[in-house]
Amino acid sequence: MLAFVRHNQQSSLREVPKPVRGAGEALVRVRAAGICNTDLEIIRGYMGFEGTLGHELVGVVEECDDPSWLGVRVTSEINLACQRCELCQRGLQRHCPTRRVLGILGKDGAFAEYVTLPVENLHRVPDGLSDRAACFIEPLAACFEILEQVAISPHDRVAVLGDGKLGTLTAMVLGNHGTPPVLVGKHASKIARAQRMGIRSTLAHELSPKSYDVVIEATGSASGMELATSLVRPRGTIVLKSTYHGALTLQAAPWVIDELTIIGSRCGPFPPALSELAAARLSPEGLIDTVFPLQDAERALQHASKPGVLKVLLQMPET
Amino acid sequence: MLAFVRHNQQSSLREVPKPVRGAGEALVRVRAAGICNTDLEIIRGYMGFEGTLGHELVGVVEECDDPSWLGVRVTSEINLACQRCELCQRGLQRHCPTRRVLGILGKDGAFAEYVTLPVENLHRVPDGLSDRAACFIEPLAACFEILEQVAISPHDRVAVLGDGKLGTLTAMVLGNHGTPPVLVGKHASKIARAQRMGIRSTLAHELSPKSYDVVIEATGSASGMELATSLVRPRGTIVLKSTYHGALTLQAAPWVIDELTIIGSRCGPFPPALSELAAARLSPEGLIDTVFPLQDAERALQHASKPGVLKVLLQMPET
Repeated sequence: MLAFVRHNQQSSLREVPKPVRGAGEALVRVRAAGICNTDLEIIRGYMGFEGTLGHELVGVVEECDDPSWLGVRVTSEINLACQRCELCQRGLQRHCPTRRVLGILGKDGAFAEYVTLPVENLHRVPDGLSDRAACFIEPLAACFEILEQVAISPHDRVAVLGDGKLGTLTAMVLGNHGTPPVLVGKHASKIARAQRMGIRSTLAHELSPKSYDVVIEATGSASGMELATSLVRPRGTIVLKSTYHGALTLQAAPWVIDELTIIGSRCGPFPPALSELAAARLSPEGLIDTVFPLQDAERALQHASKPGVLKVLLQMPET
Repeated sequence: MLAFVRHNQQSSLREVPKPVRGAGEALVRVRAAGICNTDLEIIRGYMGFEGTLGHELVGVVEECDDPSWLGVRVTSEINLACQRCELCQRGLQRHCPTRRVLGILGKDGAFAEYVTLPVENLHRVPDGLSDRAACFIEPLAACFEILEQVAISPHDRVAVLGDGKLGTLTAMVLGNHGTPPVLVGKHASKIARAQRMGIRSTLAHELSPKSYDVVIEATGSASGMELATSLVRPRGTIVLKSTYHGALTLQAAPWVIDELTIIGSRCGPFPPALSELAAARLSPEGLIDTVFPLQDAERALQHASKPGVLKVLLQMPET
């Protein structure tokens, strides 16, 4: 089958054997997959991952010990946990110390015609939902993680830094939650695009310092962290929603002087993302820039890495 | 009167006019004052402060509009708030944006024979408490701030990084709270000293990574932050108890991947420090290295800046 693979530090589309499912796994024929910034980082060497990339997917179960899954359209949680350690027993499977992570750490991902997945990681995709929208379930779940970690009240002033995919999805999720944030970007064109999606957006210099109860940092840059630190009020909260690659150089004195709370936030719960999408309360398809066939995966990833490009999807060949 | 003053970026003992109290202020004759690492940083230029240093004090009220304070032995909170802004109205006087801070920001401090202080900042020092112990009320209050910010349960594994004054006091406070932490240092001699004070102490390399629920960072160094990040469990909490001067270069990826909570912690509540000291449940006097007369303030500050020296006090001349 075709798969987009990182091997010997080189990433390319290549022919690889169709995967064979292990104990407790389903074989899923992938229908579509989303490209995430993490994929772009992995190509550059993040996590030292070697294998098939891709962790945002929708597909159909073709093989499974439990026949009730056969033919079901599914997406999948990306952390493959041991289910036995202390953290798994406490319900923190996403933090299992020996976990594998789909397309990121020790497990082949979904930029391929087929992927094998633990049945316990599967979620049924609601019928009315398009494949394209279903590709947003995983990143939306990551946005819902913020609401699991921080008690945001309707009276809170919230800013989201970063007008890319993650920032825009976060603003959508928080807006639905009853706390419409202001999305903060650097480029007038992206601001305008977010505003067309109904998201209140502005340039950074228009904001008042030390006036936000919660600031979500979704730029992944040191300058984003500095901006977050300057915008949040004393005793306020900064949520780090982007992963930081390499070393950051920061002024940490204000964190102590203003007694800030800084919370790292990674993967999140799938059920709220699924139910909000099923109820059409979230419409992420406006973020799609281009859909490429899997055969054009290399071109798709190049396109996704261009500045200003939001979501790029891969569509797999029909069987 | 004599005062230890930073002026034109130079710090020295000098003769200055006795201060005149303003509206709402008491005139306090200082009996003793403690030297804090922040004082050492101020001498090097932190905050750009110019004026009389010193913010850990015990003294006697000599002048006050309210006669019930006259002759009373007091200590003082260090943040001088406006009492009118939104933060003050919410009880966050320690974060008042226009606050002055005793001996740190816009207000002459207590390394002097006299200091003026807002009456609302004064706390009566319990009778049985020595002047020397009373000098620890302010830094102990800062340690109690941790318990206001983080819900530490008796089952939590807690580590305190830094075997200096702040780390040692923090370990004492948490131990009294029912969660004896392990104090982590770099030097066998300091470890032994803490153990003699009844504090469980160890060298960093003897600890298991990712195994502490709460790590208190009291070294004020980038390496302390890196160690804290390596020791805390996924979803655990790091409390930044030291102020960081200048830029820190850090690997922030683990904060996101492990979904850590990082909480800055500065000044704290005086009442629990006062009541624990009054009940002799805290005995910080073992941290005192040397007591110098105010006349030897320059030598005292030099001594306090030597590695391994814990608390240095200044004793003021009897009138």
